[in-house]
Formats: sequence, structure tokens, C-alpha cells
Amino acid sequence: MSVKRANPIRGTRDILPDEMDIRRRTERAILDVYNRAGFREIETPALEDLDLLLGSDGGENLKMIYSITKRGDKFAPKQDSTVRDLCDTGLRFDLTLPLSRYFANNKDKLEMPFKALQTGNVFRAERPQKGRFRSFRQCDIDIIGDAGPEAEIELIHTTAQALENAGFTDFTVKINDRRLLNAFITAFGFAPEDTQSICIVLDKLDKIGHDGVIAELIEKGYDEEKVHKFTQAAEHVTLDTIAEVTKDTKTVDELKRIIDTVSALSGGNYHIVFDFSLIRGMGYYTGPVFEVSWGDVGYSIAGGGRYDNMIGKFSKESVPAVGFSIGFERIIGILCDELLDSEPDNTRLMLFYNRVSDDFTQVLKKADSLRMDGYSVTLAPAKKKLGKQIHQANEAGYGAFLVYGRDDSPRSTAE
Amino acid sequence: MSVKRANPIRGTRDILPDEMDIRRRTERAILDVYNRAGFREIETPALEDLDLLLGSDGGENLKMIYSITKRGDKFAPKQDSTVRDLCDTGLRFDLTLPLSRYFANNKDKLEMPFKALQTGNVFRAERPQKGRFRSFRQCDIDIIGDAGPEAEIELIHTTAQALENAGFTDFTVKINDRRLLNAFITAFGFAPEDTQSICIVLDKLDKIGHDGVIAELIEKGYDEEKVHKFTQAAEHVTLDTIAEVTKDTKTVDELKRIIDTVSALSGGNYHIVFDFSLIRGMGYYTGPVFEVSWGDVGYSIAGGGRYDNMIGKFSKESVPAVGFSIGFERIIGILCDELLDSEPDNTRLMLFYNRVSDDFTQVLKKADSLRMDGYSVTLAPAKKKLGKQIHQANEAGYGAFLVYGRDDSPRSTAE
Repeated sequence: MSVKRANPIRGTRDILPDEMDIRRRTERAILDVYNRAGFREIETPALEDLDLLLGSDGGENLKMIYSITKRGDKFAPKQDSTVRDLCDTGLRFDLTLPLSRYFANNKDKLEMPFKALQTGNVFRAERPQKGRFRSFRQCDIDIIGDAGPEAEIELIHTTAQALENAGFTDFTVKINDRRLLNAFITAFGFAPEDTQSICIVLDKLDKIGHDGVIAELIEKGYDEEKVHKFTQAAEHVTLDTIAEVTKDTKTVDELKRIIDTVSALSGGNYHIVFDFSLIRGMGYYTGPVFEVSWGDVGYSIAGGGRYDNMIGKFSKESVPAVGFSIGFERIIGILCDELLDSEPDNTRLMLFYNRVSDDFTQVLKKADSLRMDGYSVTLAPAKKKLGKQIHQANEAGYGAFLVYGRDDSPRSTAE
Repeated sequence: MSVKRANPIRGTRDILPDEMDIRRRTERAILDVYNRAGFREIETPALEDLDLLLGSDGGENLKMIYSITKRGDKFAPKQDSTVRDLCDTGLRFDLTLPLSRYFANNKDKLEMPFKALQTGNVFRAERPQKGRFRSFRQCDIDIIGDAGPEAEIELIHTTAQALENAGFTDFTVKINDRRLLNAFITAFGFAPEDTQSICIVLDKLDKIGHDGVIAELIEKGYDEEKVHKFTQAAEHVTLDTIAEVTKDTKTVDELKRIIDTVSALSGGNYHIVFDFSLIRGMGYYTGPVFEVSWGDVGYSIAGGGRYDNMIGKFSKESVPAVGFSIGFERIIGILCDELLDSEPDNTRLMLFYNRVSDDFTQVLKKADSLRMDGYSVTLAPAKKKLGKQIHQANEAGYGAFLVYGRDDSPRSTAE
């Protein structure tokens, strides 16, 4: 018999028990904050209608959808059949589009405003690279049916508390607003329909620098003088200069209120700052956008914003909505660097017994009573070299052991 | 703009918040028992190599695999291309095959014996019917590297404790053994290679009855006299008569030991019985098989057995393994019938405030202090008819409320 390949498919991974412990603990820390803040958990299927996925505002993500073939007679390939000919289902690439569909499908049974909590894996057929996977977990909260800015304040405050409960401090929430970006761009003479294309270039500032942004905008055919004036003005803006340029004092005041309130609630444990270079790629944002950066890792650990027009695509009326998503894989990566290979766990106990001479019923009863005392208990048949076994248990992360019939109470494996 | 369809795709479902609460509580009750019993949680990807899935012992499940198309230039349909031509990936249909691959891939980093815990969704393109979904959650524990019967005892004892912790009592664990079934069948003159095919017919006893089994065996071409003698003998067997017929007293004694030990540990809260009509469909079982039945629902709520040959397909050596899977969707269905639409939850509190005149920072601080006291707090702008709002909150499951600036401590919405 031939031996089959045992590695997971490209871009996916197997998760080992020590990491799984960290994932569970972190998930519980986050969900605990979200539950107490009144967010209600929902679940949507990983499978969605392919036309729904392909017809969405998902931007670059649409190229990375996993497509599932039709079944039975409906699967009938011909020369040059397309994916859409042969497939009817796809895997979700985010949790926001499914949430919009879910809300429209179930709105009669949901409270309004609806405070949703959703966690689950999403799938993108990306080119695999370090720290980027084709299947990864997201953890989102959204408020549907509240035009803000109270909704933004609650979302940011709650997400920050969740990150704190997961062990993060001293992070920075960056905030910007699509309306101000658009108004600022058009104030320099660009056409309203060009704002999205200009934003896409601005979003590359981190990668290509100020000069790169200028070059790319000119290359795209925008007027050189406008580009220079605009990029220069954009480099050193404050909310006050934006108010002057755009005349949109209402949006500026709203943003100031969000920043001031969240700041007052932060207790100095984290910071919130206005950042006009924050763009966020998705085409569907309509108001405030935000991101969380931490330490000197070169990526955000959470991101979100207001998307007031998406839900209207599924129901007859337009419904305001705002969401914040924690990059679960990213925070787990940071926590694993810190926590893996740490000390053995004193609540993990190995119970040694003699498989030949001990009464297994009594051994299990002893194990159960130790479990009632709060230990996680693993049974192990004792070998001749018990000292070596205890040492191995310590290496494997067991902080305690007990020899059935010999010890009265648990002992440390570190002795 | 046209309004898109909002329902989930056929055979899948959206889960509402009240059910989600029950699912989370139940999952935690189960995982808590499994963790304390020393099982280590792992995670495998939902996506697996299509050849791996199709080449497995999955029986009927192989026909229900969701296949994912190749991407880029590799997707090149021609007239009559097959699924295997166009697809390279599939969705897992159970958690046992991924576990076997996982163990082979990671065995150098795992304790031996390895006590695995895995929970996650599996996918089967079944014809949808009441209570059967195309995406559903399983919750499995397995012991890899222990040839038993201590492993069987631990698995059954632990699964029973998990079901008890999830709220089930008075259930029945049925146990049988593939080795005894095979030996019994061949003792009546059937060929060893026919045992699997005969077992498949026996498995239909519930549906087609005793006479139906006889008819189908004869129809398959088996000798009429043998069929009659065999089915008659099979109808009223005990472990002792099986020992007589098969001469396999070792296996019979092992089974008796499992039954006696589990029974002694059960404290009378559940039962374990030998049931020679228990077959379980999967081709990969090699020893004891078990199932849990509860009340008069016509399906099992958990099932498993020993599968000693599967892991050998991935690694050079054969490794014994045994697993027990809780039918999570089934137990949730039962619990929802019992728990949904019950009393409002006294820990869910609605905090009313005046959106115009109250200081939102102070309102959020009050909400946070109530959360520290253990409440799940939802903010709600007060309307003119507060009494109606409180009544609606009660209907929506909130057991408590507080009006910011008026109440000192939470009040019941039931007044």
C-alpha cells in the first residue's frame, strides 16, 4: 500500500494543541467582552451563492474566491466553459457580505438596532506568504440600524476593551473619514468619480512613498499641478485645516466627538488619533474608517468602518451599518511569539497507574475527583523508569503529577 | 438597483442569536469535560486535497464531496472534463480522515498516546431534509496509539460525562464489535470477503425489518438456508452465545470489561448495553463500535468506534486509534426544543438613556460598571413611551433594565 501525503494543502495549516489553547483563551477573552457589551452572536454558512459573492463590492477579494462545482447532471463541461458555467457555490471571503445577507433575511426576528457578533473562517485563494493563509479566522462586531456617531464610539470602545482583555495594551486606533477624503480630493479640482481611484493610489503611501504616489497619480493622467498641490496639502493636514478646505464642519465635529469620547474612556491604556493617510481598500465604506496598530509590526491588528449602502442591496430600504473586525490570526501570531514555550501548566496533571495491577475503575474515579478539583488529568500507564516519565511530562507542559496508590496529593513535575 | 436574494443556499442555514447562545453554552459544557479529561484540542483546515478525500474509506460520503475548481491556467475545461480534471481541492466530509492526516503530519510534536479533541464544520452535498444540513458541526474525541480496551473505556466514560454536562441524562450507550460480527457471520458459512456486504444489509434492520433483511440477503444471492439460520441466531444473541459460536472469548471478555467498567462509573445516570444489531456504516471500523441513543428520537446523538488501519495509510507504521463523535446539531436540536422561548434572562440588561441630553461618555462608564457586575448591557436611546420599550425589551429576552440618571440599581422588566 502506498503511503499518502500527510501535509495540509498549500496555504492552509494544522494547528497544534499548545497554539489551540492560546486561540481558545483569546477567543473567550474577546467574546466575553463582546457578550457583556450586548452584542449577540450569529452564524452564517461558509458556503454562499457564487453570484452573490461575485456581484459584491469585494474589490480584489473577488479574484480570490474558491468556487464549488455544480453537482449531478448540472455539471456538464464543454470546451471553454467558464467558472460561472460550472459552479454555483463559493466560499465566503469575509464576514461582512454574509452579515448583510443575514440581516436582510432575518430582520423581522432581530432587535433594532442589531448589534451583531460573528466569528468564523473566511477563505481567499491568495498567493501564500509568511503569515498569510488561505483560510483564516475573523472576529467581527457590527451595529446595524444606527446612523452614528454613538455606534462608532461603542464599536471602537468595545473592540479596544476586547483587545485589552486579550492581553494587548498601548495600541493606537487610527481614524479617518471617507466623506472628508472625498471632499478634500474634489476641493482640489478632481472629479467626484475619480476619488476612489485616487484613494487606491494614496493607500500605497506606506509602500511607494510620497514621490511614488505623485508619480503614479500623474501616470494615471491627472493634472500635474493639481496632483502636487493636493499631495502637499494632504501631507500636513489637521482636522481644522480639513474643515477649512472642505467646509464640512459637521463631519469634522462628528469625528472630533468620536475621538474625544473614546479617548476619555480609554483611561490612557490606548490611544486614538486622526490619520488622514488611513484609506482602507474596500469600496463599500461610506463614512468613518478605523484601524488598530500595535508595536512595530507592520500591519494592523483590527480594522473597520461605516458601510451604509451594502444592506440596501438585499432589502428594499437602505440601512446604516458600521463594523469592526479583529484580525484574529494576526493577534494570535503575536501572542504565540510571546506565550509558546513558556512554563509547564500547573493545572495539567499526569496520573500514573499500573495497567496490570491497578483497578481501572478506581483509577478513573481518582482521575474524576482530581478533575473536580480543577485539574486537567491525563492517565498514563507507569513504566519502569518513572523519573524519566515525570521529566518528559514536565517537558510536555504538565506541571503536576500523581502516582495512583502512592501519592495522596498532586506533586510538581519540576522537582 | 435590483434587490438580491437574501436566503442562504439550499441545505444551509442562518443561526439566530437565541440558538447561538444555546450552541455556545453547550459547546463550552462539552469542551470543559474534554479538557479536564486531558484531551488536547487541534484544528485542521476545512479544505483538503481532493485525491485524499476521494481515495478514503468514506463510503457513501464520497458521493457527497464538495469539489473546488483549480485556479488560473490550471482550470481548462474541455468537452466531458471530469470533476477530477477541473478540481484539486475538496471540503472535508468528516473530522476522522483529517485527524489521521494530521497525526501523520505532526506526530513528532504530539504526546503518545495522543488524546485529540476536534470540533468544526463538515460538509456533505446531501439531499436536504428535515434536520439534515449540508454544513454541520461535529465534536470528536479520539485516542491514537492505545490498542485498548482502556482507551474505549476512557472515550465512552468521557463522552457520557460531556453529554451529562450538556444536560442529557438517562441515555443509553449501545456497544458491539466488528470482530465479533465478522466471526459470527463467517461461523454460519459465509465467506470473510462477504462480511462487509452482509453488514450493510443488517444495518437496515431498523428500516426494513427482520423479513426485509432476509429478503435482501437472498436477493443478493446468498444461500437461503444459511441466511435463515444466521438471521434467526442473530436475533436473540447474548455475549455468551456469541462466545460459543465464534470461540473468540478474548474479544467477548474485552467487551464485557468495557461494559462493566463504564457501568460502574456511570452512577446509574446512563446505561451501557451490548447490542448485536449495531453495525455503523463506515468501512473503516476494526473493533468495538458504539452509539448513544436518547429518548424516543429515532437517531443516535453520538457514535464512534475503533479504526486501527486508517492512520497507517499516511505513515509507515500502523497505529491503533479509536474515536467518539457527538452529533452536535442533533443535541442542539433537542436542547432548542426544550430551551428556546423560555423566560427572559436576568443577566441581560437594557440601559436607557437620553441621546440628546445625557453625556454619552458617562453613560458608557455606567454601562461598563454594570458589565463589571456581571450584566450583559445593551444601550438604548429612550423614547417617549418608555413603558412600551421596557415591555418590548422583556419580550426580546432582557430580564433587567435601568434608566440612566433615574435608577440606582437594575430593575426587572417583568413588573
